[in-house]
This record gives sequence, structure tokens and C-alpha cells, in this order.
Amino acid sequence: MNDRLIDPADIAFQLDEVLDIDSLMLFPRFAGQDRADYDAILGTARTIATEKFLNHYAKSDREEPQLRDGSVVLPPEIAEGVKAFHDAGFAGAHHDEELGGLQLPWTVVQAAFAYFQAANIATAAYPFLTIAAANLIEAHGSKAQKERYLGRMISGDFFGTMALSEPHAGSSLSDIRTTARPREDGTYAIKGGKMWTSGGEHEMGRNIVHMLLARIEGAPAGIKGLSLFIVPRYRLDADGNPGEPNDVALAGLNHKMGYRGTVNTVMNFGDNDGCIGELVGEPNKGLSYMFHMMNEARIGVGMGAGMLAYAGYRESLAYARERQQGRPPGEKDPAAPQIPLIGHADVRRMLAIQKAVAEGTLALGLLCARWVDERQWAPEKSARNEAHLKLEIVTPVLKSWFSDAALRANEAAIQILGGYGYTRDFAVEQIYRDNRLNPIHEGANAIQALDLLGRKVALQDGAALKAFGWEISKTLSESRKDFPDEYHALGQAWTRLSAVTETLLQRQADHGAAASLAPAQSYIDAFGNIVMAWIWLKQAVAASKAGRAYIGETFRKGKIETCRFVFRWELPKAVLACAQLETLGDGEAYPAEDAF
Amino acid sequence: MNDRLIDPADIAFQLDEVLDIDSLMLFPRFAGQDRADYDAILGTARTIATEKFLNHYAKSDREEPQLRDGSVVLPPEIAEGVKAFHDAGFAGAHHDEELGGLQLPWTVVQAAFAYFQAANIATAAYPFLTIAAANLIEAHGSKAQKERYLGRMISGDFFGTMALSEPHAGSSLSDIRTTARPREDGTYAIKGGKMWTSGGEHEMGRNIVHMLLARIEGAPAGIKGLSLFIVPRYRLDADGNPGEPNDVALAGLNHKMGYRGTVNTVMNFGDNDGCIGELVGEPNKGLSYMFHMMNEARIGVGMGAGMLAYAGYRESLAYARERQQGRPPGEKDPAAPQIPLIGHADVRRMLAIQKAVAEGTLALGLLCARWVDERQWAPEKSARNEAHLKLEIVTPVLKSWFSDAALRANEAAIQILGGYGYTRDFAVEQIYRDNRLNPIHEGANAIQALDLLGRKVALQDGAALKAFGWEISKTLSESRKDFPDEYHALGQAWTRLSAVTETLLQRQADHGAAASLAPAQSYIDAFGNIVMAWIWLKQAVAASKAGRAYIGETFRKGKIETCRFVFRWELPKAVLACAQLETLGDGEAYPAEDAF
Repeated sequence: MNDRLIDPADIAFQLDEVLDIDSLMLFPRFAGQDRADYDAILGTARTIATEKFLNHYAKSDREEPQLRDGSVVLPPEIAEGVKAFHDAGFAGAHHDEELGGLQLPWTVVQAAFAYFQAANIATAAYPFLTIAAANLIEAHGSKAQKERYLGRMISGDFFGTMALSEPHAGSSLSDIRTTARPREDGTYAIKGGKMWTSGGEHEMGRNIVHMLLARIEGAPAGIKGLSLFIVPRYRLDADGNPGEPNDVALAGLNHKMGYRGTVNTVMNFGDNDGCIGELVGEPNKGLSYMFHMMNEARIGVGMGAGMLAYAGYRESLAYARERQQGRPPGEKDPAAPQIPLIGHADVRRMLAIQKAVAEGTLALGLLCARWVDERQWAPEKSARNEAHLKLEIVTPVLKSWFSDAALRANEAAIQILGGYGYTRDFAVEQIYRDNRLNPIHEGANAIQALDLLGRKVALQDGAALKAFGWEISKTLSESRKDFPDEYHALGQAWTRLSAVTETLLQRQADHGAAASLAPAQSYIDAFGNIVMAWIWLKQAVAASKAGRAYIGETFRKGKIETCRFVFRWELPKAVLACAQLETLGDGEAYPAEDAF
Repeated sequence: MNDRLIDPADIAFQLDEVLDIDSLMLFPRFAGQDRADYDAILGTARTIATEKFLNHYAKSDREEPQLRDGSVVLPPEIAEGVKAFHDAGFAGAHHDEELGGLQLPWTVVQAAFAYFQAANIATAAYPFLTIAAANLIEAHGSKAQKERYLGRMISGDFFGTMALSEPHAGSSLSDIRTTARPREDGTYAIKGGKMWTSGGEHEMGRNIVHMLLARIEGAPAGIKGLSLFIVPRYRLDADGNPGEPNDVALAGLNHKMGYRGTVNTVMNFGDNDGCIGELVGEPNKGLSYMFHMMNEARIGVGMGAGMLAYAGYRESLAYARERQQGRPPGEKDPAAPQIPLIGHADVRRMLAIQKAVAEGTLALGLLCARWVDERQWAPEKSARNEAHLKLEIVTPVLKSWFSDAALRANEAAIQILGGYGYTRDFAVEQIYRDNRLNPIHEGANAIQALDLLGRKVALQDGAALKAFGWEISKTLSESRKDFPDEYHALGQAWTRLSAVTETLLQRQADHGAAASLAPAQSYIDAFGNIVMAWIWLKQAVAASKAGRAYIGETFRKGKIETCRFVFRWELPKAVLACAQLETLGDGEAYPAEDAF
């Protein structure tokens, strides 16, 4: 098997030792499921990811989507990969059995998806977007909408998109201008242009279902006037099959730095006044519905970024073991044999950074997936609420801090390969380019920082922050005996961050949002660093206790030494950021506009 | 003029206020030169950079060098740009007047080159490589070699390359295998393969002069057995014109992530035993000669990286002023007009990072150029020696720390442009890709860190470090009155770093090179951060005193606020790194080989 993909032992370790998947299987929703079934699913994912996703990784970058005779042409391997994904049932794996799904935990599904993300994230985007759109219809659509769309999207017969951004409104969804005019039959005439729509047009399925935000005529300005619509490429006929074209036109393709296999489009809806949309749920609640989808998407972006870090890590680790270059410092004999790159301390530093980010994101992303399962399926309401609160805190951190860290990891992969890493003969430069999107899309990272500091930490009088703090406390108490230094360091850092949070919230009360939110990036830097240290301590504790066969000495040592690496070199940066935030006072955090 | 290029006021500020170019003009070498002449040269550079380099920036990335019928085909605009550069006399600008040069200070030449680096670094690489090769011949070649090659290289009739690396020997030059067999006429038969040779083949000039490292048969193993050769693509006839082919064969092109306009080649020398090279200087001294060139090249790499940061800064600054997006935090009225991106605090943070790196590198690079002038032309020997020592310290820092920082700057530029920044319709993604080479070539950044900690700080019993420390002291005493906080912070940081240096040198004495050099990256991180703070304090002092007309309030405020930004957010990282290095003890800095 290819070295690029996630280590299956790591997946098993996360499920069994870190996440205690056995306890999740006690939820009524998952009754009767078997741990061995999960392994079978994961094995299938790994096989398809290798044979049908990884196989065209370079090709779909080189031969990016093209417009020919008005149609989007993709390398055929993309459709083959997507078909294999759908045929194996991955798009419906988490859905109810009565919908034809497997009713698997989202945790297991996300673990399976990690293989696809590491293998070829641009091809994976097609089914992932479709799954996200289907989840949105399932959560907020009418019974009729579910009947008409859901099954076909799960099977891969129809695809899905998110049509939010417009050319003048990227981060500022408040300024969306696309309009929806009520028609007599209860549907709406949609009119407007959308930008950055991934998967907006292609010929893989029989239809494309755009989940589109628009403003019903007369609706309030701003985000409170946005409604959510289902806008299919082809209108459905009486039998639910694609019929007449729905006046959805491709206006152009965006040509990107990476992530090229995912066609990215400029779309026009209703240029000829013939575009019909179906309202989802109630009017003017579109953005709150969309956030349902976006929060999952943000977890997905963080995970995807981390799995690209994983891919780069595995590529550069293999290279570092193979490539003979140089001699140890102090070796004066030029006739002494060269040593592998991994023998050089700084190469191990660059590998450790990557391992920390890659495996740390896997651990955190799967933990978030477990919380998604708990939020929806935990028997007790208090557990559901607690999971919800923790997700509110961690989602922006996973999306933002970990996607930034993943770029650092990918840069280290390129650096380890040196000149070779800078060529297109090796995957690492493409992995970086693909990954560069993640800090931008689904809410640019600065937006995540504002979300964390401006909304989440104060949510329900700090209940979300407390719920997350409780998770840290649990890990601390588990670590006290075997990891006393880390126990103290993390405890102190969390206390410090909590104090800084108070200071910033007070500053907001005293001086307003602009002053308190200006250094939001520094705050999320500190927060993310602490989350990273915590998720590694959690893994180290699990590794030091675990006795399963797949946990060999190298595996165990890797987890524990990487934890120590994170605590030695990374966590102190969080403490520094706290100090900087504390001493900032009420002055300007950054140079003023007229200083540029 | 295009916003991309360096701000001419910044160049003038550096020359007049920071570098005191007037005092340099007192050197006998530059007697009779006029400050206005320098401005004319700089104006010409800016015009050619805009009209003949910037014009094909995207094109030479899109249409990268190709091999057709055995020849390298470049977009014709590259040759036009290079020709304009040579025709304007830039390649000989620093050479003796009797050689047809202008005898200008290297400082002024480097300031002119900054425009070309910001406009199109891949096109600039051709004349820059030729200049470096010519400088090497001038420094170490015989009189006959100078007569045969130098004039033609200055005019752009011949081009030059550096042919060092081999497929199995990138960082480890010790392992070069290319051989040189003495021939009866005193020349050598060259045989071997070279890798990563930039500009190794093209059709722009009448000849290409490879400055090649090879091992004379029977020479010692390792770097002490390497000799330097001139190996022309075509042998020179009696008149010095290109004649017979010299058995130099193009074996292939490397396809890179960026920097694509510079053709990068795999070269075979002497496949048919017909490749003749001329020894430069003495046998087995090749690497020491090459280091003459490489040290200049390393300054050039640092400067180039910084000028790409400058380009990205200017692109994203223009965008941030123009693009209207979102409203201030706390603004609840969705009908309120949007504000430009620069109105958002975090965008200003990302602009400030870029400004700090871009203008900081310009200031440091030109200061290094001044030291190059002093090293060669200062009337007193002590001044020449002092300049030499300071360059020994700062060169690896400029090459390494500033090229890493420049990537962070370019990432910020992409982030400011958001989705647009991720497309190839805007320059910032290409600027990043071009820049990604800089931490790799001319000695990977890890090598620079080893060079600084393992060689430079201990050089001549610490004389180099002391000479550089003296520069910091001078700036400190100038800053005490107007910048008391910065005065204290930088003084403390430098004291701390000096103590850490002692600790690490002692560790080397006690435990050997491997233990002491392992955290070399952390050491250069601290060092570079302090250099950054120092160069900004130097600029702030100059800006607060300067009274010239081109220094308006915005310019002055920009320098001073960026200095404060660096001291507030960046310098403390150096202090943290020092603390980490101090507490490291003798344990392993990073996970062991068997932890991966």
C-alpha cells in the first residue's frame, strides 16, 4: 500500500484507545453494530482511496477542469473515483437504515473519509459537498423535498453544491444580492450570480442540486433576510427525474493555485427569468440553516487540512528514511558513509512538526465527530447539550488554527525533499498548493478567530468554554501520574488563557467590540496551541496505557515523544501569546490605516 | 507605475537616511560620483523592471521553458528583458571603469536590482547568475581567463551558471563525483552529471559559461578535493569566439513549483569524453572560491525573498484599500456601507507582517551590500575586516530567517485577497510559489542555521559576533532617547542571546557538535528575530530624524509603527526561543529516529 495514506494503526488507536468507540456503540442508534464491521468499512475506504483516488492525484492537477463546447470536462478518473465512493455506500453510511443508509456513527464515517482526504482531496470534494447538501435537506427540508432529493444524492445520481458567495460578497454574506421572487405555485424565481461554487457544473450525475442563499423580495437587509433554496440544474419531472433545464448557467471557471480537480465555478441563476427554486424551511432563516452545514464543513476543512499534512508527512518520512545525504555533525571523515536524512536533527524537527499536526488533527477531528454523534444520538439530553457546546468552541479552532498549522507542516515536507520537493515530480508541492485553500474557504481564518473570541467563548454565559475546560480537566487528571511536567504545563496554560479570556471580555464591555476583537488572531493562536497540547497529552496518556497488539514500541514512543515535542517547543508559544494579550492594554494592536 | 514594485521613496530613505550613502561616496573608489547619478540609475532600473520584466511575469510562469528539438525554448520576453538589462549596463555597473564598468557601489547596484527582483525574479536570475559567475572569474581567474570571458559576460554576449549539485549530492557537496582528468595542454577533461543547474541551457547568448566543481583525479575525498573549472558550452576559438561544441549536453529539465521562467536543468558533461574545462586558481581550492560567490548569492537569495515579500505586500495593500468587504465589529446596521479591507484590524496585522518583512529585508540587504563595499573598498584595513566579520554573521541570517519570513509574508498576501488570491488571475499565488525556492537553494535553511551556530558565532574567538554586537550597540545608543521601550527590549534580548550563545558553545565543548547543534534552527530563529527588531529600530530612528522631502507623515508613521509592531509581536518570540534553548539541557531536542 502507498505510504501516503493514513496509518491504519493510528485510526484504530484513535477509535479504540482515545475515543473509546465501544462506549459509543452502546447508544441505541448503533445497537447491534460490531467493531469488526467498522474495520471492514475502513478497509474498503483505504482500498478505494488508494486505487481510485490516489491514482489520479497528479493527473487531475495537471489536467485541470476545462470548458469545452460549454461543458465542463474532467479527467475521467475523477468520475470513476466518485462512483466507487458512492457505490460502496459511503455517502449514506451515516444515514438511517430506512433511507438505505448504514446508520454508522459519524465518527467511523469521518475516519473512513480521512483516507480519501489524504489520497485526493479534490476528488473527495464532490461526494463531500453532496453529502453536506443532503444533510442540509435532511435536517431542514420538507418530507417531499427529502423524498425527491435525498435518495438520489446518497446514491450519487444527483450531486450537491453550496451556492453562497457572490463576486462582491465573500466573507460578508450579509451583502448577498441574489433575489427570490414568489411564484404563484409556491416556488420562487431565482435571479443572481454566485461565485466560488465548487462542483457548480460537471457531467458526472444526472443533476446538480444547488443549496442557494437568496433574498426574498421585501426581506430585511443583512443576514436576517436570507433564505435557503433548493435550485436544481434540471427541474424534476413528475417522477422526480431531471427534466427541463432550470436556467442555471455556467458563467466561467476559476483557475486555482491547487485543489484543481474540484471544478470551481462562476454561476448565473435566472438570466432568462427561468430559474425556479424551492424554499427550504422558513423564509429568512437560510443562514441559520446553512450554518448547520457550515459547521460540519468547517470540521471537514480542518480535518482535510490535517489529512493533507498527514499525506505530506508520510511522503517526507519515506524520503527521509531513504535519501542518503551528509554526515553527522563532527564527522570529519569524508569517506564515512552518508546517513539517511532522518539521521539529521533538524530533519527530525521537521518530521515532528508534521507528525504533531497530522496526527493531532486526526485525533481532534475524530473527537469532534464523536461529539457530533453525541450531540445527535446520546440518550441523555445533558450529554447532547454538552457535546453541542464543546463543538461550538472547537470548530473554529480546528478549522482555523489547524489549517494554518497544516500549511507549516506541508512546508516542512517540501523542505525535507529539498530541490526535489520543489519539483512537480514529487507530490509535496501539490499537497501544499491543495492545502493552501483551507485557511481561505468556509469562512476565512480571521472570521474563525472573530467567531471564537467574539461569540463562542461568551456563549451562554461562558457555558461552552466551561464545557470544553472540563474536557481538559479530565485529561489533566488522567495524566498527573505519568506525565507530571505536562500536567503542570497544560494546567497553567489553561488557567492563563482563562484569565486572558476574562480580560478580553471585560475589555469588550468597557471599550466595545472593535478594541477587544482586534487581536483575535493572537487569541486563537494561544487557544489552538493549547488545544494541540491537550490532544497530544490525551494521546500520550492513551498510548502509555494501551495494550492492543497494533500498538508496538515505535508507535507508543512516537506518540509520547511527539507529545513531549509539542509541550517543549509549541505550548510555550501559547503562554507568550497570553502575555502579549495581557499587556496590550487598550492601545492599538496593529498599525493604523494611515501607516501604510 | 505599477504598485507591485518597490517604493522609490523607501530606496532613497535607505540610501540617504539609514545607510548614509554620502559617507560611502567618500571612498576613493567612488570619488567624483554624484548622488544624482545614482538616482538616474535607479530610475532606469525601475523603468526597465516595469516595462521589460514585470510585463511577462505571469506569462513566463504559464509558458514555462520547454524542450523542443533539443533546444530550450523560452517566452521571447525573457530574452528581451535580459537584453535590456545588459544594454543598460547593469551587469557591469559595479566593475572597474577600465573593464567598461561604471564602478558604482555594490549598495547602489543592489538597490537597482531590488526592482528587478520584485518585478520578475525568474527573468532576473539569468543576468544575476551571469554576474555571479563573472565576479568569480574576476576574483580568482587568471588574467587570460578574465580577458576571454569577463567582458563578454558583462555585455550579455555570454551567460554564466553555477554547476555544483549532483543528483546524489545537493546539500552534501562533499560527495561531488564529477571528475577532471589533466590533459597535456594544461586543460582538463571533465566528466560527470550535474543537477539543478539554473540557466544550464538556452539560446539567449552566444555561449554559456559553467562554473563547475569537480574532483581532479587523485584529489582527496570530501570538500578538500574539489576544484573549480570554467566549462563553456562552446569552446572558444583563437579570437575568443564560440567555436566547437564542448560536449556539454542537456539531459533534461526540472519542472518546478514556481520560479519557472528560470530554466532548471540536468546537465551531462563529457559523455563523449570531449568536454574541456579550464582550472580556476589552484587545484583543490574550488569550494573556497565558490564560497566567495555563494556568500554573495546567499545575500541575493535573502534579498530576492524579501523583494517577493515586497511585491506581495504592495499587491495586497492595493487590494486591501480597494476591496470593500464587511463592516466594523459592532456595526449592527446591515445597510451601513461596507468598509475597505484595510479597515479590519486583522487585515492590518497581515499587512504589517508583510511590511515588516519586505522593508526590513530591503534595509538589511542594502546594509549588507554596504558592508560588501566596505569590505572591498574601505580605506582602512580595520574597517574592511570589520565589514567582513559582520557579513559572516548576517549572511546566513538574511538567507535563512528572512526567506522563511518572506514566505509567511506571501501567505498573508494570499489570505488578504481571499478566494481571489487563490486564483491565477492575481499575482500573489505565483509570488508565493516563486518564493518557495528561496529557503531551499544556495544552501538549504537548515545548513544556514548550522553555519551560524556551528561556525560563525565562534569565528575568530567570537570576533564576528562582537563586531555585529557593536552594530546593535550603536543603534541602541541612538534610540535611547526617542524609543526608550524598544531600547530596553532590544538590549535585553541581545544580552539574553549572547548568554545563550555562550551556553551552546560550552555545550559543544562538553558534549560535542551533535548535541549542541541539534537545536540550531531555534537559535537562528531567535537570532533572526533580533536582527529584524534591530533593523526596524534603526529605520525608526532614521525616520524620526529625517527631514527630506520624500519622507511624508505617512512614510514616517509607517516606519515607526511597524517598528513598534515588530517589537510588540515578534521580538518576544526571540526571548522565548532563548528560554527554550536554555532549558533544553543535554537531552534530545527532537524525537529520536525510532519514534517515527
